[in-house]
Amino acid sequence: MTLILSGKQCAESIYAKVDSITAERQAVLATVGMPDMSWMQYTHSLAVSSAKHGIVCQNITVPPQCSVEHFAKAVQEVSQSKKVNGVLVQQPLPAQYADVVKYVDITKDVDCLNPISLAQLYLGREGVRPATPSAVIALLDHYNIELQGKNVVIVGRGNAVGKPLALMMLSRNATVTVCHTKTVRLSEVCRRADVIVSACGVPDLITEEFVTEKTVVVDVGLSFVDGKTHGDVSQEASRKCFALSPVPGGVGPVTRAMLFYNLVQIQNK
Amino acid sequence: MTLILSGKQCAESIYAKVDSITAERQAVLATVGMPDMSWMQYTHSLAVSSAKHGIVCQNITVPPQCSVEHFAKAVQEVSQSKKVNGVLVQQPLPAQYADVVKYVDITKDVDCLNPISLAQLYLGREGVRPATPSAVIALLDHYNIELQGKNVVIVGRGNAVGKPLALMMLSRNATVTVCHTKTVRLSEVCRRADVIVSACGVPDLITEEFVTEKTVVVDVGLSFVDGKTHGDVSQEASRKCFALSPVPGGVGPVTRAMLFYNLVQIQNK
Repeated sequence: MTLILSGKQCAESIYAKVDSITAERQAVLATVGMPDMSWMQYTHSLAVSSAKHGIVCQNITVPPQCSVEHFAKAVQEVSQSKKVNGVLVQQPLPAQYADVVKYVDITKDVDCLNPISLAQLYLGREGVRPATPSAVIALLDHYNIELQGKNVVIVGRGNAVGKPLALMMLSRNATVTVCHTKTVRLSEVCRRADVIVSACGVPDLITEEFVTEKTVVVDVGLSFVDGKTHGDVSQEASRKCFALSPVPGGVGPVTRAMLFYNLVQIQNK
Repeated sequence: MTLILSGKQCAESIYAKVDSITAERQAVLATVGMPDMSWMQYTHSLAVSSAKHGIVCQNITVPPQCSVEHFAKAVQEVSQSKKVNGVLVQQPLPAQYADVVKYVDITKDVDCLNPISLAQLYLGREGVRPATPSAVIALLDHYNIELQGKNVVIVGRGNAVGKPLALMMLSRNATVTVCHTKTVRLSEVCRRADVIVSACGVPDLITEEFVTEKTVVVDVGLSFVDGKTHGDVSQEASRKCFALSPVPGGVGPVTRAMLFYNLVQIQNK
């Protein structure tokens, strides 16, 4: 029987810490983005869950195809507002807007978007870390899965998960391998892993040949097939591996809790 | 017979490009540091070779144990000088001075020290790359060693070589593994590599069990034993592997050429 690394319990333990801080003082999170469907769904769901944890969510929408200056000004304004404790900017953004994240004040940068925050992450210095890779590590910690000296194979080299997670796993003393679409014999590389983290958005990418009975698999893939949410891990691999963080119900709920945790940590500084 | 990846030829081909640019217009490189012995040796040698390539090297020394403000001001002043095309700050620096690199203007940041430059590297965007990992890749390219889809194992996770090289190798579509002091069965991990890059400063770390007859080994280690320069690779491993970039005479000379190349590239923008 595969051990299921459920995100619910882990998220609850993080929310307990958040609640103990917001009980003393409310926190305000501002989001800035365009009326993109998936972004709006995300910020709406953020607003709903923030209300349960003493957090006020202000969702600011800039017009679609607005000028870069317009978008930048919106980010700058909320960053400068004394009433706002944390700022989140729509991700991913069309390339022409990518630089607006530099206007997120680094003391309010809840998801590590500002280049200065990224440099702190890269250099392994103190600072906020992006919510999704933080959630992966929090979930593994919650289930007491050792990382030091372990072979961690990350499938996917994106800026949102693969790269920051690689750096954070190195800080945790794991031996880290990063794989991607150009990796040769991916199944062989994965089979040697103690922990696989897959963040590709390709359904059934991780098949049973990728895992052994000892592998811990963290699924961070997200795709939609016939309107249903899918991860990267196949049914057969799920059944064969030692432990699995599934999609949905794994890293997802922890990511949101981690975002709120970052917010209250920042606010307390 | 091991193929020796000599840095000399590769450096010369880079210097040829540098010379063709400085023939039109001289470039000025300013260095800022304390009177630390190895830094002064380095900047002196930089000044000597720069003279041969139409580059003027201005070495600015700040007093030992000066205030952080003093050091920062010196960096800021040369960065603002219209006569200076590139700025290099002593590395490594004592922790209290680490932040002075943010005063290196990013348009003059020849060795990718400013956090904004580091974020560009991290995000895989256009920008200057640090000289040493650039030299590793230039040397492998010079000898037509394929990187795409290859297993590249980097031994060492430092900010100067290990981490930036990992990101740059990912951009080159290599499958990248980063190892370090906490890696378990390091020799086994290395034996599976197509290319090993070792940047540890531990003599004889890479023994013959780490390599096969097919391995390409790039030695970026630097240590001193009885006054003699040593790399990380043992004699036996050197003889057994397919190709070796040795210490001295491998990446070292290419690094300096690459620094000058970065300088003239920056100046031409």
